[in-house]
Parts: sequence; structure tokens; C-alpha cells
Amino acid sequence: MTKTKTNPGRFFEDYTLGQRIDHAVPRTVSGGERALYHALYPARHALYSSDEFARGCGLPGAPLDDLAAFHVIFGKTVPDISLNALANLGYAEGRWLRPVWAGDTLRSVSEVIGLKQNSSGKSGVVWVRTKGFNQHSEIVLEYVRWVMVKKRDADAPAPETVAPDLAAALSADQLVIPKGLDFTDYDFTLAGEPHRWGDYAVGEVIDHVDGVTIEEAEHMLATRLWQNTAKVHFDRDAREGGRLIYGGHVISMARALSFNGLANAQIIAGLNGGAHANPCHAGDTVRAWSEVLDRAETSAPGVGALRLRLVATKGGAAGALKGEDGKYLPDVLLDLDYWALVPM
Amino acid sequence: MTKTKTNPGRFFEDYTLGQRIDHAVPRTVSGGERALYHALYPARHALYSSDEFARGCGLPGAPLDDLAAFHVIFGKTVPDISLNALANLGYAEGRWLRPVWAGDTLRSVSEVIGLKQNSSGKSGVVWVRTKGFNQHSEIVLEYVRWVMVKKRDADAPAPETVAPDLAAALSADQLVIPKGLDFTDYDFTLAGEPHRWGDYAVGEVIDHVDGVTIEEAEHMLATRLWQNTAKVHFDRDAREGGRLIYGGHVISMARALSFNGLANAQIIAGLNGGAHANPCHAGDTVRAWSEVLDRAETSAPGVGALRLRLVATKGGAAGALKGEDGKYLPDVLLDLDYWALVPM
Amino acid sequence: MTKTKTNPGRFFEDYTLGQRIDHAVPRTVSGGERALYHALYPARHALYSSDEFARGCGLPGAPLDDLAAFHVIFGKTVPDISLNALANLGYAEGRWLRPVWAGDTLRSVSEVIGLKQNSSGKSGVVWVRTKGFNQHSEIVLEYVRWVMVKKRDADAPAPETVAPDLAAALSADQLVIPKGLDFTDYDFTLAGEPHRWGDYAVGEVIDHVDGVTIEEAEHMLATRLWQNTAKVHFDRDAREGGRLIYGGHVISMARALSFNGLANAQIIAGLNGGAHANPCHAGDTVRAWSEVLDRAETSAPGVGALRLRLVATKGGAAGALKGEDGKYLPDVLLDLDYWALVPM
Repeated sequence: MTKTKTNPGRFFEDYTLGQRIDHAVPRTVSGGERALYHALYPARHALYSSDEFARGCGLPGAPLDDLAAFHVIFGKTVPDISLNALANLGYAEGRWLRPVWAGDTLRSVSEVIGLKQNSSGKSGVVWVRTKGFNQHSEIVLEYVRWVMVKKRDADAPAPETVAPDLAAALSADQLVIPKGLDFTDYDFTLAGEPHRWGDYAVGEVIDHVDGVTIEEAEHMLATRLWQNTAKVHFDRDAREGGRLIYGGHVISMARALSFNGLANAQIIAGLNGGAHANPCHAGDTVRAWSEVLDRAETSAPGVGALRLRLVATKGGAAGALKGEDGKYLPDVLLDLDYWALVPM
Repeated sequence: MTKTKTNPGRFFEDYTLGQRIDHAVPRTVSGGERALYHALYPARHALYSSDEFARGCGLPGAPLDDLAAFHVIFGKTVPDISLNALANLGYAEGRWLRPVWAGDTLRSVSEVIGLKQNSSGKSGVVWVRTKGFNQHSEIVLEYVRWVMVKKRDADAPAPETVAPDLAAALSADQLVIPKGLDFTDYDFTLAGEPHRWGDYAVGEVIDHVDGVTIEEAEHMLATRLWQNTAKVHFDRDAREGGRLIYGGHVISMARALSFNGLANAQIIAGLNGGAHANPCHAGDTVRAWSEVLDRAETSAPGVGALRLRLVATKGGAAGALKGEDGKYLPDVLLDLDYWALVPM
Repeated sequence: MTKTKTNPGRFFEDYTLGQRIDHAVPRTVSGGERALYHALYPARHALYSSDEFARGCGLPGAPLDDLAAFHVIFGKTVPDISLNALANLGYAEGRWLRPVWAGDTLRSVSEVIGLKQNSSGKSGVVWVRTKGFNQHSEIVLEYVRWVMVKKRDADAPAPETVAPDLAAALSADQLVIPKGLDFTDYDFTLAGEPHRWGDYAVGEVIDHVDGVTIEEAEHMLATRLWQNTAKVHFDRDAREGGRLIYGGHVISMARALSFNGLANAQIIAGLNGGAHANPCHAGDTVRAWSEVLDRAETSAPGVGALRLRLVATKGGAAGALKGEDGKYLPDVLLDLDYWALVPM
């Protein structure tokens, strides 16, 4: 009598090149999401904490945290893209195109831009470019993500291999600066640190010092808030080793910890790449360090850009990333490459 | 020197037929409650997630989740009705009469409609009809609930037995459709599933597949949010076996899990009955299944009604409810009978 | 290659008498903070729960809970005042000067008003008077706090000792009553208890009965919400014995528990003093009792003031505070002395 009305998720052979997927469950955000974001992460970047500070930087008020916007857009794609994913392989060409404000309603659309069956014949890699839209049908965020997805039927024919040509990193002139942004009268005292764009040198490594031991209740609250309901994050028995923490929880935790040393890296404007190097579980104490990868000027008044590597760990020294074998060290959780906007 | 100013709760002999109880602590709700509801439960019904989607269905915006409204109204009754309750026995004749919007202030009033002393003489059953009002003194919700309450004094005389005549289920024409609701242009893609009212057959069982392992911190956050402060939910030592999870937490968890297969059962309009079959504790992994009990048309454009049994379990197969002895199986947590509004 | 851009915190010799510190990271609050406050604590004081109830008391709506305002103001001072603190020694002369409303942006400024090196030469006591401002540069809260802070260099010369002359308690006429407050038509039924100002006798002790067992996830959510990111509250390994719970979490928990017996002690207007008698850890079950210390009339219609001792414990009888040696009993967590505004 049981009929199958539940979503089994898509398998590798369900994707076709150029396919457009309109993801379900649009989401209106409010001050509630901002408050919860600050309860879940030690987030202190002043532009997202204070409407007054944001106004002092030329914006109409404090937007929703850039990563909260990312998580909402990303969460919508999970039922269509990664329910049967074996691994989340990477990100590229991510750009925040417009701030998200309290009252905005977000939805997500993805296009399949690459397909490659694995040599085993049992799975394949799917590349999608996802765009997040607000209620005015304006794009607020876009990024490419690729995942390894199971095949339903190992005998299904392989599609023609198309691996998209993705930029190793965005150039600074591809970044979109929020309309009106002006750091000329930036208040370094209220922001929490005196360090300007010019104080950061390429190659510099910053140990963010603090650590947060993660609890099950917290990562589940966060992950549900983004309506990412993949069972591996919630059902203790869905996966050997217990609940797997949503990679985005680690990203937000590391970014919030990076305030200590990067308090003025206010805005995330671009996501060049990212790897979830090792799984994170409750009980792990997450720490973070950053490395300055590049610097660039922008066309906006007083606004510079820093390209940063943000690394989350559950141990090990700041700066330690890979072993002699070229593989991530076992304590490394995240290696994220992004562009931030910083006062000059 | 200690005086008793604290609330000892009412005992069985404190209730009289026809008694009206104005429950304390009115509550204004905001976008904060919506955000928290989505952090606490894997809630994805689009009408409550997106103002835009709700507008597409003829409403002025997304209301507060129906069950969040229920919990707020219910929570206010706890200090007066169930502080000395030995068991929460049942619900009947529940109707959602008006949506609750951000900014509304809710309060609750109950009337005692039945009393029956138990043969032991040590306790009795109290039936109350509770109404929730908004700041315009409009009723937003009403339901009957009955509980077994201790007597303060076993020698107190028994009241005349009055057991109210309660409907086994509401008929569909007793349901109140939110003003303006129109599912004619319902967007099944954004809602997340293609299944219409006509796709559900009476007798059909839906296994909602996913599970959530419950943590102490989460059920306490939820229960406090509804200002239900009964100590058994918070004080580890108040009760043998540890903190008892508020039954409403299980209701909301099961309803949210039911999205997977019932994404279009958007609105809860009626509560026919419900039993908390077994206690739930932190560490339990809650799963859910539903059975279609009845179908009816409504007077609103494009809007059908499904009568559904929603069962929460901590194990066991979908469809398994009672043993040969007619008793609930030990893994069954909740058996809820409700009417949902569904696009036709 | 690692440069030090992170905040090492101030040491004793970094403070000078009269020094003004503008604390970083202003914060805009919304309905999200109110909802979270009610999810984190069993808070039920009607004036903060219901806009309608607050209007009935002459206010334009429900303000943010007084202690939530305190925590936001306090949290901003942590990176400058207590990052290297060995102990939080006391509070005095705290006054709430204006309600905080949803939409307000808060920031904090402290002035060093006392310095005293300890005889060991390794640390010293720093007194600061902290003021919290809203976006109109109006003071919303002020209080004195003193902490014991490590010296960076034990050989650094001692400053001249200046110990400020602090009032043992505010007199009632120093309290600031929120503009418009009028308890003439106070609704005792909706507030939850019938006890008026005149029903409380000096010396009376109230056992608040209920208890809450604290979880790691909850105190961390709370502490982060106030942007207090001191690592001892988050990093399991930062301190022997595990994560130390932020003292303010205990204050809010005890105050919320005190609803049961003090439901009409609606508004906290003054903080006379306070001691965190013993550390609190996850797993502790927090209970509370109060003692009426003083009573006073005020100039506002229907508004009286009660001076109350609020004690949080993890065990022991109501009324038990100190041992024969004059020291706090080991189960006492908090001894707080405050003024509340109560209907007459």
C-alpha cells in the first residue's frame, strides 16, 4: 500500500548537459535569520552587525551575512543536486552580486554545465552553475559547484564528457561591489581592528587563535535554518561515524573566527575555490588560520580587495595545510579561497 | 520565612464545570519566531517559508506556521491545566480559524467542559476547550484537550461526571479556509513536489524516509520558545528517566519530516485527534509516516482537503501502529489525525 | 611568516586612570533577539513578551528584555576589559536609563575609574564605568564593573592606587523609570500572579521551585548572541574543567526562573551589586531563590520598587547563601542585588 511520493534524489544519469533545475522552497529572510546567525557563529564583522555602521559605509542598512545568503541559496539545491552525492568536490567562480536584505525572498536555479562518468562506471561528476535570485528576479549570488553522484544503474550509457573550463580564481575586476559602498569614512575603532588593506602582505599567515568545540544541537540548528535537510546531518545512524557536519557550518565558523585578525575583511565578494578536506563531527574543536594570497585595488572609494585562503582545522599549527604527499593533513577541515573587500 | 507566592498548579478539585480560565503571559510573535521554527524543525512547506509563495496563493504574506501558533496558544495553558497532570489524554475538535502574522499578539482562554473523577479517587479527567485570540480579539485557534489531573485531597468529594460529546473527526465543511486562499495558480515546482489532492488515495501510506536524532538543547529551546515551562522538560532530575520531551516538539518534528511526500499538504486546518503514544527522550531518532484517511473538496478555488494520520516513531516500519492487543507499539511516539489543505 | 594582527587583550599596565575605551562592533537588535531570548531562557515577564501588555503599561511596545540589553552592552567590553581577566569581581551602580527597542543599534564605551595593583605584583584590579548608547547617542545603561587582570610584565611599575567610592546600593530615587510607565491599569491576570508591591515584605524569601539543567549548546548560543567571544566559553580545552559558562547566562536563567513568585517584578531598573560565587558548567541544574531586601515608592503612577537579592544555585535550600566562614556555599552560583519595578 506504500506508494513512493518521496524524493529519491537525482542519480548521475538523470542529469543532462544544459539542463535547468528550478529548486523548490523559496525563503523569506528577516531579522530572525540575522539574530540566529550571530547565535550560531561568533560573527562580529561590524557591517553585518550594525545598521548604523553599514550606513556609515554607504549602504542602506546591514545586509544578511554573505555566507548566510550563500547557505540559503545552497540549501535549496541539496534535494536536487547532492542527495545521492558521494562527495562535494569543489566550488569555483562564486560571486556575490547584490546584498540580501531583511524581507527579501530567495530562490535558486541551477544549470548543468558539465558531466563526466567515472572510470568505474558506477558514478560520475556533475558540474552545476547555481544562481540565487531575490523577489525582484535579480541575481544575488552565483557559483559553480561539482559533486560526485552515484549512478542508479551501472549499465546506463555514459554521457559525452564535458568538463567546464573554470577560472582558477576570479580576477579582482570581476568582483561586484555593493552599490554605494564607500570606505572613505570607515570607523576602524568600531570595526574592532586598525589593520587596513595596505597592512596585509601577500604570503602573510594569520593565526586566528580562538577555537569553538562543536555540539550536535548547534550544527543541526544551523543546517535546518538553511533548509538543508540531507539526512546525514541529522540522523545519527545514517552514516558510519555519526552525524556529518554540513560543510557550510565549518565555513561560517571559520569565517567568524577569522574576525580576530581580519575584522576589516568586511565583505565576501568572490569565492575562487574550496575543498572540504576532511569530515567534521560534533566534539571537534574548530580553529582557523588565513593566508593572504593576493591584493588588488577596486573602483569603489576606499575599497581594496584581498584574496585570502581560509583554513579550518581541528588541530595542527597555523600554516600547515598539506603533507609531503600533497594531500591535506588529517586535521585540516576546510581550504577556502575567497576575495574580501577591505578598507584602504 | 519562606512564603508561598509560587504557582502550585491546579488540582482536580480546583476545576468546576463552566469555569473560564484566562491564561497569563500574552505573546507577540515576529520574524524571529519564524526563523527559530525553521532552525528547530526541518520545515519546508513553501507557504510558511516564502512571503512571495504565500502571495501567489492569495494571502498577504507567509503566516506563522500553524503548529507554531498552536504551540504558543497551548503553552499559555500549561501553568493552569497541566502542571499537575499525570497524562495528556487527547485532543479533539481543533480548528485553525485565522492565520497568525508577524506582529500579532496571542493569548489563550480555556473553559472547563467536562469533569470525571477516576475510580481510584486520587485523580480525575478534566476536559477544556481552549481558544487562542489575537490582539483584535479574533479567535485564531480552538481545540479541546483532556488531561488526567491529581487530586490535592483524595477525600475531596467527586464532582458530577460530565463527559463532553466530542466529534470523532471534524467534517470537511467545518474547516475554515484562510481568507483569500486560492490554489488555482499554485506553483508545484517551487513547492517541491508534483502531487495534487487527486493523487492521494484513501488508505495510502507514505513513508517519509528521513530521521532526526533529538538533542536535549533543541527540545528545550523549542519548548521555552512557546513559554511552556513545565519542569519535566527542563530539570534532568524532575522525573525518572530524564527530561521528557514536550509532545508538541514531536508533533512539529513529524509534521516537518512529512514534507517529503506531503510537500503540498500546505495548511493544517483541523485537528481531529491525537495521542502521545509513548514518551520521547533525547537520543531518540524520530521518523514519520502518514496515512490518507479521507478526502474532501472545499469551497475555495483549487483547494482540496486531505484527512491524514501522522505517526511519529523511534523505529519500526511505516504503517505499523498497534499490536495485536490493540495497544500502540512501543516505538510509536505520536498518532495525530488532522485535516490539511492541498492544491487540487 | 605569521604576524600578530590578532587581539591579545589588554594587560593591567595597559590601563590608565581616566582612560576612555570605545568598544567595537555595534549591534542592531530586532525581533530575532527577542525570540532567541525567549528560546534560551524560560522568560515570561509579560511586559517583554507582549506589545499589547506593554502598551497597557504606557509604553509604545515591548522593549528588549533588560538583561538582553545588559548582555549586548557587556559583550562589547569583553575584548577590551576581560580577555586577560583572572576574575570578574563585582558590579555596582548599574542603571537602566532607557528601554531598548527593536531596530536600535547599541554600542559601549568604558572609562577606567580605578586601579589597584595586587600585593603579588602579578596582577591588579581595574574598575571601569561602562555606558551603553543607542543610535541617538542616548545612554541606555550604565554600570561599574571591576575585574582582576594579569600583568604582562611583573616588573612594570605599579600605578597610583585609586579605588573608586561606590555606593553599596542605589537609593530608589536614583532609579530611572521608563518614560510613560503607568501601572494603574496593570492586568494581574495576564501578568500571571496577583502579588502586588505591598504583598512583599522585607526579609521574605521566595523559592522559585523550578530548575533547568544546562547544556553546552545553549550557553554557547546565548553567549555568542551577545558577541561575547571569550574562548573559555567555547573551547573545551581552553580551561581545566571544561567550558566555563558566561556569568550572564546564569543571571538570565535565574531571573527567568524567578517569574514563579515574582511575575510582577516586571522591570529591572538598578543593579546594586553582584557576585559570581562559583563557576557554572554544562550539566548543572540551575535553581533560584529571591530575598526581598528593601521596598520604596516611586514617582510614577502605580509603580513601586523592590530591592531583591536573586540567588542562583546548583543545589541547596532556598535562603542558604554563606557558610559559617562567611564564604559562599559551594552550590551557590550567583548573588545578585537589583531593583525591580512592581505594580502597587
